[in-house]
Amino acid sequence: MAKKSFPLSKVYGLLEPGPVVLVTTARKGKQNVMPMSWHTMMEFEPPMVGCVISNRNYSFDSLKATKECVINIPTVEIAEKVVGCGNMSGVNIDKLKIFGLTPKSASQVGAPLIDECYANLECRVVDTKMVAKYCFFILEVVKAWIDPTVKNPRTIHHLGSGNFMVAGDRIKLKSKMK
Amino acid sequence: MAKKSFPLSKVYGLLEPGPVVLVTTARKGKQNVMPMSWHTMMEFEPPMVGCVISNRNYSFDSLKATKECVINIPTVEIAEKVVGCGNMSGVNIDKLKIFGLTPKSASQVGAPLIDECYANLECRVVDTKMVAKYCFFILEVVKAWIDPTVKNPRTIHHLGSGNFMVAGDRIKLKSKMK
Repeated sequence: MAKKSFPLSKVYGLLEPGPVVLVTTARKGKQNVMPMSWHTMMEFEPPMVGCVISNRNYSFDSLKATKECVINIPTVEIAEKVVGCGNMSGVNIDKLKIFGLTPKSASQVGAPLIDECYANLECRVVDTKMVAKYCFFILEVVKAWIDPTVKNPRTIHHLGSGNFMVAGDRIKLKSKMK
Repeated sequence: MAKKSFPLSKVYGLLEPGPVVLVTTARKGKQNVMPMSWHTMMEFEPPMVGCVISNRNYSFDSLKATKECVINIPTVEIAEKVVGCGNMSGVNIDKLKIFGLTPKSASQVGAPLIDECYANLECRVVDTKMVAKYCFFILEVVKAWIDPTVKNPRTIHHLGSGNFMVAGDRIKLKSKMK
């Protein structure tokens, strides 16, 4: 996909609706990827994101050590791959390769962008005070990319136990909300 | 709506998909309501939810003082009311009354359940360490209610500037995720 730079001030609109995302990390030459649904915006600009990454996940150690990751936003077209990434650990395997997900170099962080995802957010960990107790990392999005040809991304939203809601209709209401 | 008790172990499936919710509070006999999209699950059971409620909102003081709230999950049928609640402050008005939202008594907390929402989560604040810096409250869901007749709730998901995505199709994939 030919991505273009996306304004940091608009990043909140990508994550607020609650899509399942793929978090990529890289440490000592080894890349990994995991699906994640437990995230929230915490500030508009610079965009800050809070997320829970369990210490039972291989990605936890990478994120803690490198303090860098990429939040990649997939759509329903690759839903099987997203779920597949969550069904196995990356300790001994290259999940990106197994699922045919293409890593591209990020501009600000060592973790890769997943080419098949319509949006990619390069992130740095900026606060780890809640990691010990809740595995809760606070990230700052330092660079964002988007595929400008994707107008209504059919993101997937986890409902539990492998059930997902796919993004449906769009509506516009008279809101003063940002 | 005739609601029934909903298992706390399944609450994550209601919030993970990222719906806009209506947060109700009550303090000194005064109830208030505000829409909120910045929330994430933090633990399965007991269900813990992290959320950002700006200190510019009237609800911030109520929540901080009472340490209780209800997370009410609306669907597209009342989207106009949800947005309306976000367009004004409750300092001098009764927003529930203005928008025809019916408050019902909760079982564990002083804040009201909104009858028109298909699910209601009674919450207590359990951690305020991140409130000063991020306005981030950590809540425990102590009681959950659901309308059993609503099978595929058409929740609304904020995309920014009054644009919303409405929950669409449901799919089931072979996932080991909880």
